[in-house]
Amino acid sequence: MLSSASSKRTSRTTVIRVRRGAARRERDQLVSEEPLQVRVSAGGESGTVAVTMRTPGHDFELAAGFLFSEGVVSSCLEIARISYCHRVPLEERHNVVTADLKVSTLPPLEGLERQGVVSSACGVCGRRSIRDLEVRGVAPVCSDAEVGEGVLLELPHSLRRAQGLFRRTGGLHAAGLFTLEGELIAVREDVGRHNALDKLLGWALLQGRMPLEDHLLVLSGRVSYELMMKAAVGRVPVVAAVSAPSSLAVALAHRFGITLAGFVRDDGFNLYAHPGRVRLWGSGSISEVEA
Amino acid sequence: MLSSASSKRTSRTTVIRVRRGAARRERDQLVSEEPLQVRVSAGGESGTVAVTMRTPGHDFELAAGFLFSEGVVSSCLEIARISYCHRVPLEERHNVVTADLKVSTLPPLEGLERQGVVSSACGVCGRRSIRDLEVRGVAPVCSDAEVGEGVLLELPHSLRRAQGLFRRTGGLHAAGLFTLEGELIAVREDVGRHNALDKLLGWALLQGRMPLEDHLLVLSGRVSYELMMKAAVGRVPVVAAVSAPSSLAVALAHRFGITLAGFVRDDGFNLYAHPGRVRLWGSGSISEVEA
Repeated sequence: MLSSASSKRTSRTTVIRVRRGAARRERDQLVSEEPLQVRVSAGGESGTVAVTMRTPGHDFELAAGFLFSEGVVSSCLEIARISYCHRVPLEERHNVVTADLKVSTLPPLEGLERQGVVSSACGVCGRRSIRDLEVRGVAPVCSDAEVGEGVLLELPHSLRRAQGLFRRTGGLHAAGLFTLEGELIAVREDVGRHNALDKLLGWALLQGRMPLEDHLLVLSGRVSYELMMKAAVGRVPVVAAVSAPSSLAVALAHRFGITLAGFVRDDGFNLYAHPGRVRLWGSGSISEVEA
Repeated sequence: MLSSASSKRTSRTTVIRVRRGAARRERDQLVSEEPLQVRVSAGGESGTVAVTMRTPGHDFELAAGFLFSEGVVSSCLEIARISYCHRVPLEERHNVVTADLKVSTLPPLEGLERQGVVSSACGVCGRRSIRDLEVRGVAPVCSDAEVGEGVLLELPHSLRRAQGLFRRTGGLHAAGLFTLEGELIAVREDVGRHNALDKLLGWALLQGRMPLEDHLLVLSGRVSYELMMKAAVGRVPVVAAVSAPSSLAVALAHRFGITLAGFVRDDGFNLYAHPGRVRLWGSGSISEVEA
């Protein structure tokens, strides 16, 4: 079952739909979820950097985006080729992607090993692995980008309109890249919100659009530590999310100079960090209220 | 920042709340997100099994649930003690949890190494890591549990009423354990839906309530491969989710004999697998419709 790489983004199923006491058997669509193994090769060596459960489609972008946001590559010029692996059984072929790097030796991949099994003494416990999560050498985003309040309010609508898979399955996270004027550039979807953003960043990387200092990033759900880390690596100055950020997401937004808007909905939004990039209607004055 | 283990489940922040063109600076609460390193020790050896970004609180349950759903332990009798690590700096103390196992040697932890870095030749690529995701030796859930349509429809409301953190922060996933009559037994919340379920399973394990063959599991969001694997390990016969399942979640529900209901909302729900455990109102007859 796990091996049946169909490379289809949705799959059909039969469902019993119960509504107000009446039950009907109907055909329905589900969003596909399959494992993708991301590998890198260089100088005759190769290694696995991740296995992620993802929605098939845009697999090369997902691989490129993952390698970019994890710091393995910083430019599309460092990647010679991305391809499905032809040395695995046919049914697994679309679940294994290899990026050939233009360097003579495989880069160190240890830092990516997030769930590594270490039998070190307890004296270093909490150190090695939690330190792996520490903020890498990512500089704050310096961008004089600005976005109008009206543009910000419209972003979730534009994202939703562009979400083809969501309409069919109701089960997808999305990440969208927009101009500062609110024009949609690209949207990617996935069962995993990290994958959706990696696909989007990989698309931008492979298009030679990095860094994204003049763009808006829109997220369909909540904002976690990992999403803000990826946004920072992509040099995105403004992140707008439909739902709530976590404490660490807000802390990273402060630290990386990223404007973070949450709960962006019809009647407004919350600004959690670096609000200066949002041009508010009216006088732009802010009342002070202690909750 | 990552090191400031506060063990608080929410943190206060200042937010600029923009509503209908008016901006006010207010105090707000965010859901906390911090890393937790889960370690096991036995026979004088210890090792890390995972680092997960989680909401502090119920950390021992999270550790126990993770070890249970990953197959490291199958009963609370196998765990001698769970504690915060006292050999790490004070500020990291609440982010490192060690489970002391009642065995003389550390169990093999390699299978848990999901993002392991292997420089094996491509001839085995796709094998080792994707096979790690393959269904472990989990038998189908044989349970004659039944749930009424009215009980099923009420579950999301009961879960939401019990979600204390969500009300304050709007940013939490939840997993709830219910009796077959719809009585809430326990609910756990987290920024990560897998963590919420691990906390709930860990609670049940430490309470000696496993297996959960006479219980309903309610999930606040979408259903993925990993959530269904955890439900299967806990022997849960009925899973009800507020949102959509993925293709692999439905496949696992079929394979493990688990009744899976999705989109459970006020006016109805969809049954994706093993519908026989749901007693429908009326005649219970099902119309056949080809979509």
